Amino acid sequence: MAGGRGERFWPQSREATPKHLLPIVGDKPMLAQTVDRVAGVVPRENVFVITTQAQLAGCRGACPDLPPANIVAEPMGRDTAAATGLAMLLVKQRNPTAAFAMLPADHVIKDTVEYAKLLSIAFESAESADVLVTLGIKPAAPETGFGYIHQAGLWRKVGGHDVMAVKRFVEKPDLETAQGYLASGEYFWNAGMFVWRVPVVEAAFKAHAAELYAGLAKLEAAAKSAGGWAKALAEVYPTLKKVSVDYALMEKSTNVVVVPATFDWDDVGAWPAIAKHFTPDAHGNVLRGHAMVEGGTHNIVVSTDGHLVGVIGVSDLVVVHTPEATLVCPKDKAQEIKTLLERLKQDPAKTKFL
Amino acid sequence: MAGGRGERFWPQSREATPKHLLPIVGDKPMLAQTVDRVAGVVPRENVFVITTQAQLAGCRGACPDLPPANIVAEPMGRDTAAATGLAMLLVKQRNPTAAFAMLPADHVIKDTVEYAKLLSIAFESAESADVLVTLGIKPAAPETGFGYIHQAGLWRKVGGHDVMAVKRFVEKPDLETAQGYLASGEYFWNAGMFVWRVPVVEAAFKAHAAELYAGLAKLEAAAKSAGGWAKALAEVYPTLKKVSVDYALMEKSTNVVVVPATFDWDDVGAWPAIAKHFTPDAHGNVLRGHAMVEGGTHNIVVSTDGHLVGVIGVSDLVVVHTPEATLVCPKDKAQEIKTLLERLKQDPAKTKFL
Repeated sequence: MAGGRGERFWPQSREATPKHLLPIVGDKPMLAQTVDRVAGVVPRENVFVITTQAQLAGCRGACPDLPPANIVAEPMGRDTAAATGLAMLLVKQRNPTAAFAMLPADHVIKDTVEYAKLLSIAFESAESADVLVTLGIKPAAPETGFGYIHQAGLWRKVGGHDVMAVKRFVEKPDLETAQGYLASGEYFWNAGMFVWRVPVVEAAFKAHAAELYAGLAKLEAAAKSAGGWAKALAEVYPTLKKVSVDYALMEKSTNVVVVPATFDWDDVGAWPAIAKHFTPDAHGNVLRGHAMVEGGTHNIVVSTDGHLVGVIGVSDLVVVHTPEATLVCPKDKAQEIKTLLERLKQDPAKTKFL
Repeated sequence: MAGGRGERFWPQSREATPKHLLPIVGDKPMLAQTVDRVAGVVPRENVFVITTQAQLAGCRGACPDLPPANIVAEPMGRDTAAATGLAMLLVKQRNPTAAFAMLPADHVIKDTVEYAKLLSIAFESAESADVLVTLGIKPAAPETGFGYIHQAGLWRKVGGHDVMAVKRFVEKPDLETAQGYLASGEYFWNAGMFVWRVPVVEAAFKAHAAELYAGLAKLEAAAKSAGGWAKALAEVYPTLKKVSVDYALMEKSTNVVVVPATFDWDDVGAWPAIAKHFTPDAHGNVLRGHAMVEGGTHNIVVSTDGHLVGVIGVSDLVVVHTPEATLVCPKDKAQEIKTLLERLKQDPAKTKFL
């Protein structure tokens, strides 16, 4: 899934170059890192990228080793349930009973060995029973920015690993609730990584998302007609119901299991989150490019290039410079980038900065 | 006097383009505004600009209507007393008894009519007696960033205006002292604007700055020799004692008078000071160029051009963007720019940003 807008990494992420097409952390685009990461588990010819028209060229550029036809553009974003449905149809066309994984393209996971092992366990689980499999991240802190997965005890051992039954998926909690989740040891972070067989996920659409299921059936039929996928996507995809896969399927299904994931994981949701992936200076400043800080400046994140950014006497700030635009924002206000971008959208003189 | 480094306006001011060569306030370089301002009082052919080698081309570009030979470069900065001595010799060469004004090139004065009138009164005063004349600004606030002039009652009426005797020049005061100055009504801000006749200022050098006086005599003699001014400046100027005209002459002379100035005046000493020269938005933000603020942002100064600067959720900040460098600095830390520039000087990879 490589269709996000990456607004929270503005101005480095733009409409045509969102977060997953940038090396926000690491030395290649996050999407390329994601494709590399699954290489040992899924053959390249079976790796699909679902993106948008605006990002199609960028995704092809980031994944030169994938068959270009495997990089599929939605005519417009319809959220993750529709993207899952599209992926399901693309896989089904090749093999109607195959298992496939749905993976976000913009996360940081450094322990690729452990990742590959647990992704394989998830595939093995999905192939062994009619279950929706998810990889759940063991929480390291009472995060309020993630959804959680409540496990219900051992489902079965797969490849020597405990795979847990799932009681329910829960929305982002408040802090107190998150602290309770952490203390109980019964919850995982929902990282949006799923593995299932085509018939199992199709049944879930049918049971819990009937309207979307009908739309996907229409899309499947249209793709088999003369116009093929291009015409089918253009005509049918925009009519699909816009809903998240968590809401449409995961929160409603009772046949969900979770593979507890022990690899490092970070969704790097916004600029302040990059700090933990770089070595800070003695004052906790993470300075990328020509950056200088002076005068009691602490816990700054600066992202620039050959352009010098000088920050004097202010702490806990993010400064991001690109040739077109610069962002200055306290770490705890990073979520307000979206409000700024909304205003940019409404100013014809400034839409070029989106 | 157009030789300052303008460090406090970094990164817009650079070594070759200091504050007086930029339109920090107004639509032309501060130097060009200064030259325009004296046009009604001093004929163009009698206007000299004293600058540095690095800024010579910039000053000529900013003053296309002045005779190029009137723009004279110091081989190196030797502070304002030496610049005054150089000016004195340049004027003396044309007319050994002429009165001339020494004026900073980077101040903002909008009431040019009142300014021209009071500058004429200062000339008339200087021509009527053996006095060192200064223009003193009526203080509007207990500023601790300026030196003050303590007046000692009426010296005489000149052109219908009260010109006051001066008791003494005083250094920058602390706040309590400045409040006392303001309350007394007996003090003016020292704006560094002086008018005097050549023999009177020469006598002041002789009486109060003997070492510099000797150096100036050497410079004068050298300028009359075969190599002319170019050789004389190159050889003698660097040997002149580095001292301010306030310290060398004004604080020690007893024949000083002050013309109380009622025009608006601002030396615009640093970035935060530009705010009062522009119309702020409803939140006190002064935004020049493509700038946007969001999320409870107040009293911001942003200076940019076609490059977008977005500031989110932080107040009382200065953000200055130029194509080469960006400064982010709380208003009350603006003086620390100098520390940052000191570090730039010591880093060979970054001296290009000076």
